[in-house]
Amino acid sequence: MNDTHPYKTIASKTVYENKWIRVREDKIVRPDGKEGIYGVMESNDSVMVIVLNDKNEVYLINAYSYPDQSWNWELPGGGGDGEDAVIASKRELIEETGIVAEDWTLLGKTRVCNGLMTERQSTYLARNLTMTDKKEVEDEAIVSHGKFYPLATVHEMIEQGKINDGQSLAGLYLAEQWLNR
Amino acid sequence: MNDTHPYKTIASKTVYENKWIRVREDKIVRPDGKEGIYGVMESNDSVMVIVLNDKNEVYLINAYSYPDQSWNWELPGGGGDGEDAVIASKRELIEETGIVAEDWTLLGKTRVCNGLMTERQSTYLARNLTMTDKKEVEDEAIVSHGKFYPLATVHEMIEQGKINDGQSLAGLYLAEQWLNR
Repeated sequence: MNDTHPYKTIASKTVYENKWIRVREDKIVRPDGKEGIYGVMESNDSVMVIVLNDKNEVYLINAYSYPDQSWNWELPGGGGDGEDAVIASKRELIEETGIVAEDWTLLGKTRVCNGLMTERQSTYLARNLTMTDKKEVEDEAIVSHGKFYPLATVHEMIEQGKINDGQSLAGLYLAEQWLNR
Repeated sequence: MNDTHPYKTIASKTVYENKWIRVREDKIVRPDGKEGIYGVMESNDSVMVIVLNDKNEVYLINAYSYPDQSWNWELPGGGGDGEDAVIASKRELIEETGIVAEDWTLLGKTRVCNGLMTERQSTYLARNLTMTDKKEVEDEAIVSHGKFYPLATVHEMIEQGKINDGQSLAGLYLAEQWLNR
């Protein structure tokens, strides 16, 4: 293992903060010895859920991205509130889809954008499902609907650019590797 | 297609800016009609390169993440300077690895973190390779070394958590789907 730290941090200040994110600007010494700055966005760890039914179909939701101002097919999930990842996953899944799952398997913990963020994404596989009407009315406006898709269809949607959420792709990749084991 | 916009933006201001990122805070009306804020990080689009040799092995680099303060196995790539994505990919690949590739194929353009960022990642497949000594000395400190790995080994490294960069996982997934077509 390499335990060197090529950047030295000599000062750090919060430059922006709201309920969900904190942006800090660090004063650093770069590997070449020159002083510089590095801006980092901190946020709570997030969760992504691969909902798999008995036919190995995956549940995708059509959700709105405010930063992108667009509707997209993606996995259920979202930013955590700082609570345990599996609790956050169960909560997000019910809120966004109404689905309750019995079996939860952690597939991986990944760094979302390692050049600019500290956020880590926990990806869970959710199986043994019960469909309920517990979907939150509040979420209706930003999660219009959802549906189970066979993996072959998911692949087509990715090829056509219809699924282009990087966090969902990372989650789907982990799930397919799990299925192939 | 759904072209409704559940959030209304009523004001927007820059709250932090440096050479690489701009953070803005928008004043919004949420779907429930209440006013709120939304913080968004803007950055140049980034690139990720799947370097594939004649044996379908993938080149991984061991690189340092400042936000995570750790060394990680990942794909070559990085933040763009606003230039064309394939030009940025060629530049990053030579700087980080010394590799020159003849054939470039765009595999997808994905959103890195669609809840908080505007950044899009272009993933390119690079083939028909020449190894050169053009790797930049400046990059030695943050990209210690690189190596070709068979896909089976890549899968093991992911399962063991040795590859845990979400952007690299999204890129690898696109590449494997391309290979399986």
